[in-house]
Amino acid sequence: MLEELKEIVYKANEMLPQYKMVTFTWGNVSGIDRDKNLVVIKPSGVPYEDMTVDDMVVVDMEGNIIEGNKAPSSDTPTHLELYKACRDIGGIVHTHSRYATSWAQACRSIPALGTTHADDFYGEIPCTRAMTDDEINSEYEKETGKVIIETFQKKKIHMEDVPGVLVYSHGPFAWGKDPLAAVKKAIILEEIAFMAENTLLINSQVQAMQPVLLKKHYFRKHGKNAYYGQG
Amino acid sequence: MLEELKEIVYKANEMLPQYKMVTFTWGNVSGIDRDKNLVVIKPSGVPYEDMTVDDMVVVDMEGNIIEGNKAPSSDTPTHLELYKACRDIGGIVHTHSRYATSWAQACRSIPALGTTHADDFYGEIPCTRAMTDDEINSEYEKETGKVIIETFQKKKIHMEDVPGVLVYSHGPFAWGKDPLAAVKKAIILEEIAFMAENTLLINSQVQAMQPVLLKKHYFRKHGKNAYYGQG
Amino acid sequence: MLEELKEIVYKANEMLPQYKMVTFTWGNVSGIDRDKNLVVIKPSGVPYEDMTVDDMVVVDMEGNIIEGNKAPSSDTPTHLELYKACRDIGGIVHTHSRYATSWAQACRSIPALGTTHADDFYGEIPCTRAMTDDEINSEYEKETGKVIIETFQKKKIHMEDVPGVLVYSHGPFAWGKDPLAAVKKAIILEEIAFMAENTLLINSQVQAMQPVLLKKHYFRKHGKNAYYGQG
Amino acid sequence: MLEELKEIVYKANEMLPQYKMVTFTWGNVSGIDRDKNLVVIKPSGVPYEDMTVDDMVVVDMEGNIIEGNKAPSSDTPTHLELYKACRDIGGIVHTHSRYATSWAQACRSIPALGTTHADDFYGEIPCTRAMTDDEINSEYEKETGKVIIETFQKKKIHMEDVPGVLVYSHGPFAWGKDPLAAVKKAIILEEIAFMAENTLLINSQVQAMQPVLLKKHYFRKHGKNAYYGQG
Repeated sequence: MLEELKEIVYKANEMLPQYKMVTFTWGNVSGIDRDKNLVVIKPSGVPYEDMTVDDMVVVDMEGNIIEGNKAPSSDTPTHLELYKACRDIGGIVHTHSRYATSWAQACRSIPALGTTHADDFYGEIPCTRAMTDDEINSEYEKETGKVIIETFQKKKIHMEDVPGVLVYSHGPFAWGKDPLAAVKKAIILEEIAFMAENTLLINSQVQAMQPVLLKKHYFRKHGKNAYYGQG
Repeated sequence: MLEELKEIVYKANEMLPQYKMVTFTWGNVSGIDRDKNLVVIKPSGVPYEDMTVDDMVVVDMEGNIIEGNKAPSSDTPTHLELYKACRDIGGIVHTHSRYATSWAQACRSIPALGTTHADDFYGEIPCTRAMTDDEINSEYEKETGKVIIETFQKKKIHMEDVPGVLVYSHGPFAWGKDPLAAVKKAIILEEIAFMAENTLLINSQVQAMQPVLLKKHYFRKHGKNAYYGQG
Repeated sequence: MLEELKEIVYKANEMLPQYKMVTFTWGNVSGIDRDKNLVVIKPSGVPYEDMTVDDMVVVDMEGNIIEGNKAPSSDTPTHLELYKACRDIGGIVHTHSRYATSWAQACRSIPALGTTHADDFYGEIPCTRAMTDDEINSEYEKETGKVIIETFQKKKIHMEDVPGVLVYSHGPFAWGKDPLAAVKKAIILEEIAFMAENTLLINSQVQAMQPVLLKKHYFRKHGKNAYYGQG
Repeated sequence: MLEELKEIVYKANEMLPQYKMVTFTWGNVSGIDRDKNLVVIKPSGVPYEDMTVDDMVVVDMEGNIIEGNKAPSSDTPTHLELYKACRDIGGIVHTHSRYATSWAQACRSIPALGTTHADDFYGEIPCTRAMTDDEINSEYEKETGKVIIETFQKKKIHMEDVPGVLVYSHGPFAWGKDPLAAVKKAIILEEIAFMAENTLLINSQVQAMQPVLLKKHYFRKHGKNAYYGQG
């Protein structure tokens, strides 16, 4: 079942080592079939070089395994919360990519400092709050998803406009209209994290970019007046 | 038409991923035929691995498409302004290369800190001023070109002597006598940006290099008394 | 003798250049046969590209060569002390990997700053004290092992829970249940060292992560209630 | 003539791009025949990928071309001064490698911060003083060599014990008993420069390592009591 989506999710997962986004098995990509309400996700702890398309696991929206011989990623409940919270999301990726994780460990949101950021993320990439002991000790991965959603709600950010987040003391999640788009956003988030850190090292007093420039670049690429690319 | 120039522009564009100067489609190179007053430029948003020489777009000095099936780079009007401002420029490149972009985001000019800088750039690599809301909201890419030219005029720098610039909150442009020379300057600019940041991290009090050493190295490689290379 | 262990130790040593953990001959991996009380270790100063499995050296617990035509790693006495101190260790690796060595040179323990750390190291990765002149001038490599053990004892850390250490002004050692597991820990230690440095550069005031989150992540992967991976 | 030395110098030059020590043509290696008092050096400004062994240039101790169709490296007079100053030097390399050059631009000597440094450099790697306008405007490259020698004399450092230097606002030179040994020292110098910068970023208050540890590691590898390697 879901053979086409499995192929896409498999291919999206394999992009992670190709783009040097993961060490060992650290990272996972999922995709959703909105009609069937089923999610395809990477198995837990399987090396990318050994993984085949048949290792992909199909789960329902409560996390029950519908198909597959392996345990799904331990982060599956986080993915499910995000899919439930935003119907525009078709794929999700979690990594421990080096620079985005450093920002997450620093417990700092990444301010929008330039057009590279503005081209794909319409404003700062938020860092979540610290989770409570109860949240960590109960359904940890599900609560991780909830705290991400809370962060976007409190800051009044649409998940479509800022397709990524830093989880406090942990690392980044990113998403997109499908699994490949999600991986692309994760790679861009890593690039933005790199540049933002180096920008601060060069000028510790730097401020967020002009809102009008942020808007200009974001809408060069998004929405009905976009004019970047081949239309 | 312009088959030879198209080949060169294509080859110069392909150098960008080879030298790890771009992520995805971020970057573009153009070249000009001064006799015909036509510019060849990369198409907008086309992945480097899919691009062929036939995808190159020919535009006139007002940006009208003269030949080609694809939309030209959205940055085309910036390139055209620079070609109009300085007749010695035969090729232009724009990237979001990591270190030069970090300096641009830091809104800081790169001071001349050593002979690596002096060998190719005769003095600081300037950062432009912030653009006004009107400039951003009107003909943004054309105004970007204008603010670059204004920067060189105000600082009394010749574009031939300092073949690159940092656009405020954005990233670098570089140029040369032809498209391949322009890409080479962009790569050197990135290298200089890397070293300048690390120099500051080692010694935050460092000053610009001695003017006489700057002059010595620049003119070892440029002008009629140059003695570097095979003459 | 010990042909299987030699193959494993050889393979583990060859992982070091593959993962860019060493420059030239800087680094060594050993493995122990607990039944025979013999250790297999890399020869001293042999380039990785010239090394064969037959170059592996077999030594007893006093460092006497039992088999092999080459001198064993000069760090052999350090390895032996660690094997004697903790029977759970089956493999040990020493490198001068770039970021872990920078922390060792900074004479700073690496605080647990995020889940990447917590997944494999249950708490800070300690830096040893400065060795005394007498320790350095007598049996230096053996004393290095002793100061590592003293560090874990004084800080009341179990070597199984924190499978790595930074030797003051020197570099990292890491260990695991076998030589390949040890190399994997060394690679993770390097990744953690990278992220910890960058975390500090982004936020110099950052504190160690919440103990409950550290515990949660460590025991997701370790002990009888672990639920990461394929069980 | 000097066919064997030409082969070695050629091979040593080709190591520079292999080890990512150079961008474009930035860097040069030479070797000396002490019996004939002749030096073989890379030609000026020739790309490494186009260079052949026959492009190597033979010069005498005054810099006169004895054999070769190309102009020698513009840095030849610096090499010659160093060969004259220290008869133990058989090969010299100059690069603009990224981290060593950043230290040179920061006008800072690299303190001995750990055993990686101590294994090959017996004490700080000095940075020269600023050259005078007269020195720069007269025989610049020869004067560069003289200021290097002055630095070692004033600091009472033997060139055999510390086989490298940072030229103020410029970049590193390194040397060894032959051209391949010189390149190896240049690579190690770059690694040390990297680690020293990162050490300072982690702990800005760090001091030079204990002299006894410096001595221990240097003489593990050098002199008649060395015990590192295969003897």
